[in-house]
Amino acid sequence: MGFPSLELISKELQQVESLIRQATRVEEPKIREPLKGLLWGGKRIRPALLILSSKFRSADPKKVTSLAAAVELLHAATLIHDDLIDGARTRRGRRTLNSKLSEGEAVLVGDYLFAWAAGLAAKAADQSLIWRFAETTQEIVLGELQEAIAKPWVMTRKDYYRRISNKTASLFSMASEAGAVISGAPQQEVNALAKYGYNLGMAFQIVDDILDVIGDKKELGKPTGSDLRQGVVTLPILYFTEKNKEWRNLPKLLSDGSLQEKRIEKLLGLVRASPAISLSRSEAEGYTQKAKKALDILPSNPYRQALLDLADSLLLRHN
Amino acid sequence: MGFPSLELISKELQQVESLIRQATRVEEPKIREPLKGLLWGGKRIRPALLILSSKFRSADPKKVTSLAAAVELLHAATLIHDDLIDGARTRRGRRTLNSKLSEGEAVLVGDYLFAWAAGLAAKAADQSLIWRFAETTQEIVLGELQEAIAKPWVMTRKDYYRRISNKTASLFSMASEAGAVISGAPQQEVNALAKYGYNLGMAFQIVDDILDVIGDKKELGKPTGSDLRQGVVTLPILYFTEKNKEWRNLPKLLSDGSLQEKRIEKLLGLVRASPAISLSRSEAEGYTQKAKKALDILPSNPYRQALLDLADSLLLRHN
Repeated sequence: MGFPSLELISKELQQVESLIRQATRVEEPKIREPLKGLLWGGKRIRPALLILSSKFRSADPKKVTSLAAAVELLHAATLIHDDLIDGARTRRGRRTLNSKLSEGEAVLVGDYLFAWAAGLAAKAADQSLIWRFAETTQEIVLGELQEAIAKPWVMTRKDYYRRISNKTASLFSMASEAGAVISGAPQQEVNALAKYGYNLGMAFQIVDDILDVIGDKKELGKPTGSDLRQGVVTLPILYFTEKNKEWRNLPKLLSDGSLQEKRIEKLLGLVRASPAISLSRSEAEGYTQKAKKALDILPSNPYRQALLDLADSLLLRHN
Repeated sequence: MGFPSLELISKELQQVESLIRQATRVEEPKIREPLKGLLWGGKRIRPALLILSSKFRSADPKKVTSLAAAVELLHAATLIHDDLIDGARTRRGRRTLNSKLSEGEAVLVGDYLFAWAAGLAAKAADQSLIWRFAETTQEIVLGELQEAIAKPWVMTRKDYYRRISNKTASLFSMASEAGAVISGAPQQEVNALAKYGYNLGMAFQIVDDILDVIGDKKELGKPTGSDLRQGVVTLPILYFTEKNKEWRNLPKLLSDGSLQEKRIEKLLGLVRASPAISLSRSEAEGYTQKAKKALDILPSNPYRQALLDLADSLLLRHN
């Protein structure tokens, strides 16, 4: 897992793992094997968030792990379609599951995971929580739609924040909220944990986007700069182009596909050496602080500590 | 609507219409307009089925119309992805919503409708019914996956029935079942209505597949033979190739894309003039009879009559 704070809930995470594996039991090997490749492994941060958030009150452990697996499968489903779309838009970048399947098949495998997630949620949660699941899915999908339609060359930092809020923070927030709700937490605690999840998600995505610029190829398991090559403009790039007007038309060049590999490498080097990285880091730190602060009202116990530690670990991670 | 038997529930169908329209209120005109094109109009058979099935007992009308709209949106979502896949597989055939959007956008619009359907279902139904929604979605998607992976040139009639059972009958069955369940019908009635829906769905799809061979271009709103051109082999074609061995390798030629337009036209003419059509019609009639027979245990009232009439109308339709 890589996050020592999660040892506290290793039993629950194992249960989640076995629920996730059930979703890979598809008859056709052509589908099953890429699905396994996608679903086995992974940081399981969203399930962990949901489980830890359920620990402040008392919850049915079976329902908690079902919901936690549902959140992870929902995430996986959006990942498949998201990768497909990035691929379709740029014909570039990493394509794991997609590279082994036709586009149509990849669409259907994503749908299948959506349906599986809905089934797990329906078995574990009451109507209002299932409604939140559906609502969050709408947020994520609308966020991706906006991203697909948006012209990257007119994007501002505000657009960026809106995008990662929809794309990442909404599901983090829903996970921690669902954990709190299912354990019967009072509204104030539900709100606190949802706020924690939201800000953790914002920080998480910013760190992800920084790592895509400065990370180590080996540790990341993918080449740096893959966002940029896919025409996706992130916070470090926005900070950089704000200060370096000669690079202002860069996102347009990217989306035209007219930027050469050499220029991309040069740009990445310039961004790495610029204050854009530390400015972005400060933002991530700010969200992490907000996340941790939201937990002030919770009792000081090992679960609260684990959430605090998780926030720090996610900020300091290298992949 | 074109089905006189549905005038009985025209008020409810109007409510469904307005719920469906709410799903088209998307900010971006680029998405909104094609979505409207897809969602406005349509036969609304699945909602009608759900509403009529709820009429034998007493149900909350708001819940009924929400569920009915959910079923139609779920259907629309699978349609979008299905069209996309057929397009991706053959680069041929009708592409309405897809032709106005990129593939990635079409994937997301489908996801958005899935999520909207899930939201409507979550607001109206209890856990077990939502679970059935999720399960049916899995059936539909797995059916499409099998279709995408299947080699059409080794397909038998048995494969065909399995495919249309997953693709069409499962949702028809779920719609009538959901109507019965939400009205508090006893299990025997739930089973009867589910059986009605299932067999109606089988008949509906077979008629659809016959019309694709013999239908009138204008009435259908698309050229005949579009299944064939997309490499999809249906019942009339299977009956024909069973008896005409010289056409046995046809599906393979189709899937290779090596069958010329002239040959397709010739084949369509031969199938039209062959007993394959009446053999297929007999099958559709058989399912229609089974559907009507399932209603024997229900009280003889205008709603039962409407369901009986609906079965006949669907069998006799021209589009």
